[in-house]
Order: sequence, then structure tokens, then C-alpha cells
Amino acid sequence: MSTAPAAGQVSPAGQQSPLALICGGGSLPLAVADYVQARGRPVLLFPLQGIAKPEDYAQRPHSWVRLAQFGGFARAARAAGCHEMVMIGSMVRPAFWQLRFDLTTLMLLPRIAAAFRGGDDHILTSGVRLIEEQGFRVLGAHEVAPEILVPEGTLGRSHPSERDRADIALGLDYLRATGPFDVGQAVVVSGKHVQAVEAAEGTDEMLKRIAELRASGRVRTPIGSGVLVKAPKLGQDLRFDMPSIGPFTVEGVARAGLAGIAVVAGSTIVAEPAQLIAAADRANIFVLGTPAGGQR
Amino acid sequence: MSTAPAAGQVSPAGQQSPLALICGGGSLPLAVADYVQARGRPVLLFPLQGIAKPEDYAQRPHSWVRLAQFGGFARAARAAGCHEMVMIGSMVRPAFWQLRFDLTTLMLLPRIAAAFRGGDDHILTSGVRLIEEQGFRVLGAHEVAPEILVPEGTLGRSHPSERDRADIALGLDYLRATGPFDVGQAVVVSGKHVQAVEAAEGTDEMLKRIAELRASGRVRTPIGSGVLVKAPKLGQDLRFDMPSIGPFTVEGVARAGLAGIAVVAGSTIVAEPAQLIAAADRANIFVLGTPAGGQR
Repeated sequence: MSTAPAAGQVSPAGQQSPLALICGGGSLPLAVADYVQARGRPVLLFPLQGIAKPEDYAQRPHSWVRLAQFGGFARAARAAGCHEMVMIGSMVRPAFWQLRFDLTTLMLLPRIAAAFRGGDDHILTSGVRLIEEQGFRVLGAHEVAPEILVPEGTLGRSHPSERDRADIALGLDYLRATGPFDVGQAVVVSGKHVQAVEAAEGTDEMLKRIAELRASGRVRTPIGSGVLVKAPKLGQDLRFDMPSIGPFTVEGVARAGLAGIAVVAGSTIVAEPAQLIAAADRANIFVLGTPAGGQR
Repeated sequence: MSTAPAAGQVSPAGQQSPLALICGGGSLPLAVADYVQARGRPVLLFPLQGIAKPEDYAQRPHSWVRLAQFGGFARAARAAGCHEMVMIGSMVRPAFWQLRFDLTTLMLLPRIAAAFRGGDDHILTSGVRLIEEQGFRVLGAHEVAPEILVPEGTLGRSHPSERDRADIALGLDYLRATGPFDVGQAVVVSGKHVQAVEAAEGTDEMLKRIAELRASGRVRTPIGSGVLVKAPKLGQDLRFDMPSIGPFTVEGVARAGLAGIAVVAGSTIVAEPAQLIAAADRANIFVLGTPAGGQR
């Protein structure tokens, strides 16, 4: 994996300011914390209530924060000397009416509501802009922990066939054509045919659909063929919403009877790489990082 | 609706040769037969076994045919003096191994198998070419019965709002961008966001997904907003695989909580227009034929 120097703000004394890490679900936030701390930079953990699991944070100092309660987080982070923050981990886009807003957030509410009416990218970009106006620099997790990015080449033992490579090229072409539309980031291609396109349902639901379409005979390419292709959207803010894969993705791909996964190297996060590789090798699923800008 | 003159081959005696109509499911084949006969041209009905319903044909002369048994059809149609044929009605793409081939078809098998490996368009176009090489001219149902096409403007009482028109424009743009990929012909757009893209699952399954995404809170635009947008694919052979809507489409759109349906006028077939309009008016669903080539 890449060992490019990680971003970070250096204080006058040569000491880096602590990094505020807002933690969604899954183990990826803890992996990022470990990578950053291994570089000597202190990290403050802010797990999101209702999303991060309490048991994952029991052994580490942390402060719970709530979605839509930006003020509480901002005060705690500023008091600890943080100027930079990263948001990482799985996140279910919240229902607007389920959020309870604090005062700071309430003041920003008209603009947040406007963002909610747009697409996903629009929300995320607006969110980042609002936070930066409050005095924090928002970094991508991959900027402070480049180890989490998928490298070029295959992860694990399996490799794509020529047929798989043709499916991958078609999938990347399709995602390039639909990039301007702020839709999904993933398609399933098999037999040189786009079988499913992700939009609001997300990657996991799309993979379930492929399994069902196979069962009902509407997708007829043989089990063990076809590829899940993921790519960033055009103009997607990679600090905040990078495509990601993990062991769960491999399991969904295996259940859908596909041959493998292709993502864009350097623009895709891999959560739990050791478990992902183990799952891929168990199921004979290839996981390929394709060069950015390339056809395959 | 258009009253353009219908296609037809005139025999030396000034009599039109009978039209061979291969009938899939639904009532549309019978409507086409009625329109053609009302113009004075005789029609021979060839319902497809396992797809057309026997009770629909009990009152009319007909000859059952089987998929993949082209020889039997060709002999009967030639004996009756048919030179032109139309295929119309709903069709489930058959599983290759479920077909039982007759001799004529068997001779064409390598090319049929090659077509099956491509996308839907590829199969259909190859099928038409094979049939034409056997001496039949394949016409689109709309060429012999232009009454089945959606006209410009609305069918029924409801009309799209300005918000709906913005969703329609976005949907048409998306379908134009993905036209070269031989994928689906439909998207659901609401709140200026593409919420679902049809691929192998078909329009009905996509509409079911929208209903589920609404129930689970992943699609959050209000009930009664959003549009099903359908358009022909680029280079789609409209003789054989034109987008179509019917009362069933309106019911799916109503269950998905959408405001309406937009299709391309003159390039979309409407099955059972009276029932479609009744269903649309009952559910306050608009059904709009947009000008071909226009944005809305």
C-alpha cells in the first residue's frame, strides 16, 4: 500500500495538534485512529451515538456525540486544541425528522434543510462547508491514514479473467457516463451486460437483487461470473464519501454468484483488509484495484 | 392520436396480404389485430404457447406457436400468403435451456446462442435479422396500428407540476447518457435525484423497490412526488422492443407513491388505454407523452 506522507497540522512547538475523529459504524474508525497514532499524532475519538457500538470504544478514551448536535462536538474539540477533523465509518443517511438539533446546528438549519433536498453529494458537500465555516479543517480519512486505500492490483489470491476484465471495462465506462448525475457508485456487469445499477438502495441491496434475479432466471450468466464495479462519482468529495469495500461486500458478492470486485485504486477505502482478503480467498472472489483514469 | 397511414404490402390484385401476428401476453395483440382488421387487412393470429392465454383466443381463429419453433410458424404463415409479420405483447425472456428447438431453428442455433450472450437489444436485433433472412418482413406493431402509440400531452385528468417537469428532464437526460449501454429503459426521479435505475430487474421490480425504499426511509421525497421516466434506448429496434405502459404500470407507480409517468410520445406503446386512463384518474397519476428529442 502507499506510504505517502499523511496530512497534519504542525503547531509552533513542532507538535501536531490532536486530530478529532468522528466515528460512524464498523471497525474502520479504530483502524484509522491506530494508523494516525502510529505516526505520533494524538487522536480524539468522537463516536456517533446510535451508530458506533459502545463496546468498540470501551477500551479507549472517547466522547459520544450526536448527529445534528454539532455545537457540543465543536466545543469539546476546540477545548482539546483540535483544528482538523475526519469523519469515517458506516453511516445511514438520517431521516430529517429523527434528528434532534442543538443550538449551533439549529442556526444552520435552513441551509442543512436545503442540502437535504439535493442528492447525496450535495448534502455531504454542504455539510463539509458548514463545518469548515465553524473553524475546522475537514480532512479525508485517507489523507491521515493512506493505508486504508485499495492499492493497484489484486488483494488476495484470485485474479480476474479476460471475460471479467471486459465486464470491468464496461462497468467503468457506465459509471463514467453517469458520474454527472449524482446517482450510485456501483453496477453489476456480467456477460458484457449491465445487470444492476445502484441508486438510492445502496450496494448491499443491489447485490441481493442480483442473487434474486439469478434465482428467478432473469440474470442467466453462470454462477462465478460477473463483477461488482464501484467508482467515485464525478466531483465526489472524497474527504467525506469515498467508495468503500469490506468483508461484508465480499460476502454479498459471493452470495450474488459473482466472480469479483473491481474498484478504483487510491480512491476506494478498504475496511478490515485482513478479513476481506480471508473472505475473498475462501469464496474465490477476486478484489481488483484498477488504475485511476484507466479502462481496466 | 396519430392517424398516419399504416404500413402494408399490397398484392398485385390490390389486396393486402394477410398480416401474421405473433402474440405474446396481455390484451395488446388483440387490440392490434382489431385496429389492423378495421383497416380492411386480414390478420392471422399466432399466440405463443405458455405466454398468451388460451381464453383470450377462444373466440378467434388462431394457430398456436412455440418459441424456438420458427419452422412451424414459417410454414403456416407462408401457406396463408403472409409476407409480413408483427410480434407484440408481453414476453418473458426465455431461459435458453427451457427452449425446445425445431429443425429450422436448430440450424440457426449457433447464431441464436451468440445473440443470447449479448444484451437484450442484441438478441432482439439478431432475432429480427434471422427472421427476415427466412423471407418475412418484420414490422413494428405501431407501423400497422399507430393507434397504440402514446401521443404528445397528457392521458387522463392529472398534469405534471413544475417540480415534476424538473424530475422528468433529469430522467430523460440520464436515460440519454446511458442509452449506449443497452441497459434498462426506465428510471425513477424524485426531488431532482435519480432514486432507481432499471436494469435486468424490469420496470415493475424497480417500482416495488421504490415502495420499499420509501417504507425504510431511504427515499424521503413526499408521497405523491417523483416520476417514472421511460425512454427508448439509443439504437433500440422499435419494431420489436418499444417501451410500453399499461394499467399495470399506473398501479405500480401509485403503489410507489409517485406523481406520474413520463414517456416519449410516438415511441411508446400504451396497452389498454381506456383502463390506463381510468386507473390514472382514480389514483391522481399523470401520464405524459413528451415530445421526442425534447427535454420535457
